[in-house]
Amino acid sequence: MLVSKILKSLLFWPLLSSSLASGLNITQQQAINRNRTISVGYVIFDGFEGLDVWGPLEWITQMSVFFPMNLSTISYKTGPVHARYATHLGASYDQVVGGSMLATHTFSNAPDLDIIIVPGGTGVLNATLGNSTIIEDFLNARFDCAEYLLGVSFGVTHLARSGLLNGKKATTNKSGWTWITPYGKDVNWVTQARWVADGKIWTSSGMASSIDMMYEFLGQFYGKEGALNYMTNVIEYAPHTNPNWDPYGPVHNVPGANATSPTLDCVGPVPLPVRNSSASSSNQR
Amino acid sequence: MLVSKILKSLLFWPLLSSSLASGLNITQQQAINRNRTISVGYVIFDGFEGLDVWGPLEWITQMSVFFPMNLSTISYKTGPVHARYATHLGASYDQVVGGSMLATHTFSNAPDLDIIIVPGGTGVLNATLGNSTIIEDFLNARFDCAEYLLGVSFGVTHLARSGLLNGKKATTNKSGWTWITPYGKDVNWVTQARWVADGKIWTSSGMASSIDMMYEFLGQFYGKEGALNYMTNVIEYAPHTNPNWDPYGPVHNVPGANATSPTLDCVGPVPLPVRNSSASSSNQR
Repeated sequence: MLVSKILKSLLFWPLLSSSLASGLNITQQQAINRNRTISVGYVIFDGFEGLDVWGPLEWITQMSVFFPMNLSTISYKTGPVHARYATHLGASYDQVVGGSMLATHTFSNAPDLDIIIVPGGTGVLNATLGNSTIIEDFLNARFDCAEYLLGVSFGVTHLARSGLLNGKKATTNKSGWTWITPYGKDVNWVTQARWVADGKIWTSSGMASSIDMMYEFLGQFYGKEGALNYMTNVIEYAPHTNPNWDPYGPVHNVPGANATSPTLDCVGPVPLPVRNSSASSSNQR
Repeated sequence: MLVSKILKSLLFWPLLSSSLASGLNITQQQAINRNRTISVGYVIFDGFEGLDVWGPLEWITQMSVFFPMNLSTISYKTGPVHARYATHLGASYDQVVGGSMLATHTFSNAPDLDIIIVPGGTGVLNATLGNSTIIEDFLNARFDCAEYLLGVSFGVTHLARSGLLNGKKATTNKSGWTWITPYGKDVNWVTQARWVADGKIWTSSGMASSIDMMYEFLGQFYGKEGALNYMTNVIEYAPHTNPNWDPYGPVHNVPGANATSPTLDCVGPVPLPVRNSSASSSNQR
């Protein structure tokens, strides 16, 4: 396959694809994760937020070049799912343009999942205001067998409504704070956080923060050295790596957010394995 | 419409949706752009890069809440288009997982377009190595009538092969530099740039840089004050606003890239219109 041959050459494949080949400093569990097949499931719905899905998904796709994975996109029914509006409960938001993606599975026939990801979007408002609990039922049914559950932005509402956040730390979109956080019981809502991990549940703030959460999540899951950091620099994404950097709480007047906390974050390329002396000097943080 | 009512309330709709209502400091052309219907077309293909499409598309979607737009996703045929591999020229890359999106139009029946966007991905390699010129023919046929043509990452190859970059300034993905830049004639390839604008053609570096290019592009098109900057902070995206900040040239050993240029960029929330004194102090850059 010509394309994959070129890509492997571009990507220094032997250096990145195996912990053994490159002598990377990763844990035993990360080495195991690099060799087993991971089943990833995205919950999607009409009115999903594009960046909430396709931001983190860029990482998933890139890591699947190196580590075995399968991906399911799971919704009420298979086939087209529209980012632009939420029709399944009758609401319309039809001046808004957006792309459509495809659901491969339904909530009934989704395969076993190691990692479940729930994005936000107007569909969350729709389902919640319509008192639908279909997504919550799915999350409750799958939670015990899943290794990780990740919620993004308004999608954290579904995690809260399912009860799975009760007594746990979580965060969510700061512009939607007052709408989202009344859901759930005794949730320890972290008012200033780019993302929060509590056991097997990870939650992120507004849309773009999910890209940073996924960088950190995959970094812990596979190790950052090698494939993840190399592809981060191919993507030319400078991640916010401090989960406590969150100027958006004050911007959106989240109660309790500290307006004197730093608003700026210095971000840049991530460290790469040293390939030669001239390259290594330029990418240290 | 309950959802749109809630959203409008969340979004301070009256403040943001009209230049007149909010007294924004925008140009006459930006005011005109806010009131006319803009036709946006994304070129997509099997093997498109997810973030190249859905990163900039997040801005398009958000701006369409405020300013009239329509969106076409344009490919070889309508229906499912797969991010994960490129099949239309026979290659396979099937270990890679990825989402699928839907094409609404073909290269033959796409509507008139004001803004055309070309993403990258393995499909670019496939089409180029297969000597297909279908995308190049489409770009040449549509260029004169379009107001803007934007190329992202490896997708800039299609712009170069079409001849539309001849004699112009452009940039592209720094990890693919040596593969991409031989295409085109007398292109003034800018070795260190997050993005480059030359007349009606804008080009960006690797995937994530397209989000920054689109922030700047829409900022020039509609003005940043009001809707764009408000939604930037809702998305919780801290844009790189300096087109010359590009540490990825040195990281990827691009010939001529300056390894002593700054690697870190300080990014944070964008300025918002002053809503009250306590909020305004925290979001100044």
